[in-house]
Amino acid sequence: MRLKVIFFTSILCLQGLYASQDNITEYFKYLDQYPATLGPDGSYQEGEIEIIRDREKMLEIQASTNRMVGLVAEDNYWIWLNDAVRFPGGNYGVYGRIIWKCGLESIPGIAVLPLLPNGKIALNRNYRHATRSWEYELPRGCVE
Amino acid sequence: MRLKVIFFTSILCLQGLYASQDNITEYFKYLDQYPATLGPDGSYQEGEIEIIRDREKMLEIQASTNRMVGLVAEDNYWIWLNDAVRFPGGNYGVYGRIIWKCGLESIPGIAVLPLLPNGKIALNRNYRHATRSWEYELPRGCVE
Repeated sequence: MRLKVIFFTSILCLQGLYASQDNITEYFKYLDQYPATLGPDGSYQEGEIEIIRDREKMLEIQASTNRMVGLVAEDNYWIWLNDAVRFPGGNYGVYGRIIWKCGLESIPGIAVLPLLPNGKIALNRNYRHATRSWEYELPRGCVE
Repeated sequence: MRLKVIFFTSILCLQGLYASQDNITEYFKYLDQYPATLGPDGSYQEGEIEIIRDREKMLEIQASTNRMVGLVAEDNYWIWLNDAVRFPGGNYGVYGRIIWKCGLESIPGIAVLPLLPNGKIALNRNYRHATRSWEYELPRGCVE
């Protein structure tokens, strides 16, 4: 009986430890599977936010910023990645991004700026959950 | 020795279980602390996406959609909430939102549409981490 308890509690805990240590491996799986939407790595010397792929450097940045690097969380719809990056100024840091899973295969969507012949701009009015309010916004859509 | 193992593994596992069951309590803490930015609850009958606050109904929606409801994840910068909601059509579902922590106290930011005297529109060109590319976009800013 006691052995059973040890066995099952250990299994549960190993799962937890595995999940927390493996977030960088899971992160690289996504980056390597979807290079077109999650890449390119960029170059800080060209004014871009460069993604750091060196695991030791990633852990160093994680420790110095006190922010988890790698796959932070995911569900059926979204992925939250915290990238270890080098900014155009040369500093290292962590920069997060949340991605719709449906948008991993291609460009997730577009927005248009509809200029009417009289010079006015057409806007939509939608209720948006993110802001909990009605918003005037440019027409936009998801690519399916 | 064996008792020690049981003790420590049990503590670890209880922490894990506690964390996973407590995400709805943590979620309500945020909603109640920041009603101006995380609310209002809205009304599906008025075409809005209504937030469901009944815990039993929330767990029912979590089970039927197979998506975690409550506080999914957070770090120093972001909070990921999955709200149990009722849509204008009457259906129940889960709708996520990611919020900058710095924006919880007030409106997080604004965008402007700069119309020039000659009828043209001024746009910025920025390197954006979210898309990993240079973007033309409306000037916008964070409220601090």
